[in-house]
Amino acid sequence: MTITAADVKALRDRTGAAMMDCKSALAESDGDVDRAIEILRVKGQASAAKREGRGTEEGVVASYIHANDKVGAMVEVQCETDFVARNEDFKAFAYEVALHVAATAPSYVSSDEIPEEEREAERKVFAEKAKEEGKPDDVVEKIVEGQLSKWASEVALLDQAHVNAEKHDSKSIEELRQELAAKTGENIRVARFAYFRVGA
Amino acid sequence: MTITAADVKALRDRTGAAMMDCKSALAESDGDVDRAIEILRVKGQASAAKREGRGTEEGVVASYIHANDKVGAMVEVQCETDFVARNEDFKAFAYEVALHVAATAPSYVSSDEIPEEEREAERKVFAEKAKEEGKPDDVVEKIVEGQLSKWASEVALLDQAHVNAEKHDSKSIEELRQELAAKTGENIRVARFAYFRVGA
Repeated sequence: MTITAADVKALRDRTGAAMMDCKSALAESDGDVDRAIEILRVKGQASAAKREGRGTEEGVVASYIHANDKVGAMVEVQCETDFVARNEDFKAFAYEVALHVAATAPSYVSSDEIPEEEREAERKVFAEKAKEEGKPDDVVEKIVEGQLSKWASEVALLDQAHVNAEKHDSKSIEELRQELAAKTGENIRVARFAYFRVGA
Repeated sequence: MTITAADVKALRDRTGAAMMDCKSALAESDGDVDRAIEILRVKGQASAAKREGRGTEEGVVASYIHANDKVGAMVEVQCETDFVARNEDFKAFAYEVALHVAATAPSYVSSDEIPEEEREAERKVFAEKAKEEGKPDDVVEKIVEGQLSKWASEVALLDQAHVNAEKHDSKSIEELRQELAAKTGENIRVARFAYFRVGA
């Protein structure tokens, strides 16, 4: 069957994948659009996994000071090349992360960074509360695990939905990071952040 | 003798003290300008000492990102009232401190904050070096103390001469802080800073 330029363009608009990838996915699926999307998704995940392992030596530092000068955030976002570091989408992402940090004051970049003692202290509080409410032991454990993972996502920057939900379709910082990684073709890493509030 | 408005104005221009203070200093010194300056200086030190003990709950957060987006600094500078926090001189000082931090990457705000272990490690290095150079024991101690205090001033923000020496007459951050405190009449405190450099 014949794959037209319009078919390729339509698939590209739906998936955001590169023209060449759309063309070969349509060829592989014999023009079946749903199957082509599936092919692109699998391919995308494979290349994302490959990206995640790559080193990030370049990047930018961005800051956001709240209008009243009482709250400020600074972030370091890394990528692989200076070419991407100078890309407008990359800079915009770094700025949006700084703005988000100023608004939500997270404690960690990723939930992996939460120290075990802090996690255990939270676990204890949740468990005691569930027991006090008279829940049976086997239920307590499940409740605690649920509350613990909810709490972890609240203190970890990457798991938080961007504070400007309208602009970012309620996506999390991690989802926005992955999108940017796919778009730029580079591994993107939110390396660190600082949050200052006057007198706090 | 008669103190004219022009005398008061001239003294004010030389010292930066308030009109009323200049007038009473000239009255006290019987119009002797040098003596009036001395009186103002003593008075200034007394009020500075009084200020230093006062609480600082207000202030601003300021940041400076180097033009290439590779280096950033954020600082919190505190004062006593929101009135001073909104003062242009105060904001300018906070900005100048952020700019300075981005340029020099200090390790501590004040040399008091240097941990004892770090100081001892430096002391050891300096002492060994001085001994290797064959200096007698009583001289080694003096050399080491000198080097140690020089090193402390290099890692401590307040002791550093502002990086823009021309603009700030080679004054240290601490000197600029004291000037601002005298000018605003409030206790000013550089509370903390963060310094990020991409990949470092």
